Amino acid sequence: MISKNRAKFIKSLQLKKFRKQEGLFVVEGGKSVLEVLQSNFTLIELYVTSSFYAENEFILKLAPIPVEIVSERELEMASGLQSNNAALAVVQMPAYQFEEPVASEFALVLDDVRDPGNLGTIIRIADWYGIGKVYCSPETTDLFAGKVVQACMGSLTRVKVFYTALNTLLEGYEGPVYGALLNGKNIYDERFDQVGLIVMGNESNGISAGLLPLVSHPITIPGHGGAESLNVAVATAIVCDNVRRPKS
Amino acid sequence: MISKNRAKFIKSLQLKKFRKQEGLFVVEGGKSVLEVLQSNFTLIELYVTSSFYAENEFILKLAPIPVEIVSERELEMASGLQSNNAALAVVQMPAYQFEEPVASEFALVLDDVRDPGNLGTIIRIADWYGIGKVYCSPETTDLFAGKVVQACMGSLTRVKVFYTALNTLLEGYEGPVYGALLNGKNIYDERFDQVGLIVMGNESNGISAGLLPLVSHPITIPGHGGAESLNVAVATAIVCDNVRRPKS
Repeated sequence: MISKNRAKFIKSLQLKKFRKQEGLFVVEGGKSVLEVLQSNFTLIELYVTSSFYAENEFILKLAPIPVEIVSERELEMASGLQSNNAALAVVQMPAYQFEEPVASEFALVLDDVRDPGNLGTIIRIADWYGIGKVYCSPETTDLFAGKVVQACMGSLTRVKVFYTALNTLLEGYEGPVYGALLNGKNIYDERFDQVGLIVMGNESNGISAGLLPLVSHPITIPGHGGAESLNVAVATAIVCDNVRRPKS
Repeated sequence: MISKNRAKFIKSLQLKKFRKQEGLFVVEGGKSVLEVLQSNFTLIELYVTSSFYAENEFILKLAPIPVEIVSERELEMASGLQSNNAALAVVQMPAYQFEEPVASEFALVLDDVRDPGNLGTIIRIADWYGIGKVYCSPETTDLFAGKVVQACMGSLTRVKVFYTALNTLLEGYEGPVYGALLNGKNIYDERFDQVGLIVMGNESNGISAGLLPLVSHPITIPGHGGAESLNVAVATAIVCDNVRRPKS
């Protein structure tokens, strides 16, 4: 069972301040918990419902820490979600070191993406397209917030996310810097040569004025209808798809 | 000012039951309200804050109904959002008739998309790519829910959304029926000939078993990394981008 105090502690990890203080974050939902369990992340606590345990006994028996079977009601007392009938893990924040972008691969650069769902979805997209590094401005929403972790759907364990000053990053980078803008080159005419940084801007304001001069290759997704813009996660996916599609 | 009773009435429109009963729905947020104001939708009530009024006086003076200036606090009493410092409109549900898909265009078909943010984002994507019709299964989340309208960002006024039995729709259709699956033809090898239906499945279960035999062209977005799937709105965007990109 989860004691009231423990539930309160776990719930406190919904706040960035406490996550930072404890070096811990919470992973919820069956799929995400199973992914983190099979990753090299360090689990501290693992709570599951009896039905989830029954469905996933084989994997859960291999868990490196005791698996506590709790009621759905107990789980929800500790949960940051509206409902959780499966699993919750308290996980140590990964302590990977900062790595500069390598000149032989693509990486994403997020300039103040504020919506947790967007950040999580973008990490899942990066994972899908085999992009292993995402650089975020310090103002980008916190990676370990519940809604981000949930939208990541486990991709958090495979994509490295760094928070860093983007102007320094871009200034020191020698490859092409692509940036999604409304008046760039038609993305269908751009020949992506399997190396570069892709800068995506804030939901309301796009790429900040200070970074624009550092974008060497402005690109645009052509629209055909009335919408003024695309959601930033959607635009990221389309850029990644164009980057990865075979060149004809 | 918004009376307490009026605020309560507007707030009741967050529930499908009352929306259906009254034939009304709520549009919130500055951009969406301005779009609906410039569309052929019928506005019933329009509330704005004084700062929003000052910023958009030119457009608001052309409104066909009285514009009521209210405080942010009053607006939030009627609002379905966590905060609203701009505008809220009560709008009549559009009464367009059902239209069969035309054999010379693309349309989207959504099989039980349940997340309001996904449905709204998909409508915005349809609008961006010039796709004017979206067919939804009866179980798909309600178009006029607050979160759907918000995620549409005004595209609701340009894209027609029909709720209908999808098996009847697909059975009666003579063009190609594309469906996003995990084991279809590589999307980069598919030659989309500017006509067809594109079926996207439910967030957890994909396209339902009953519809699968009606998909004549199963297609797949190739993955390069570890993620098992893409968010349905993201996948819709990538399919639309591949449909619309010029053929080489």
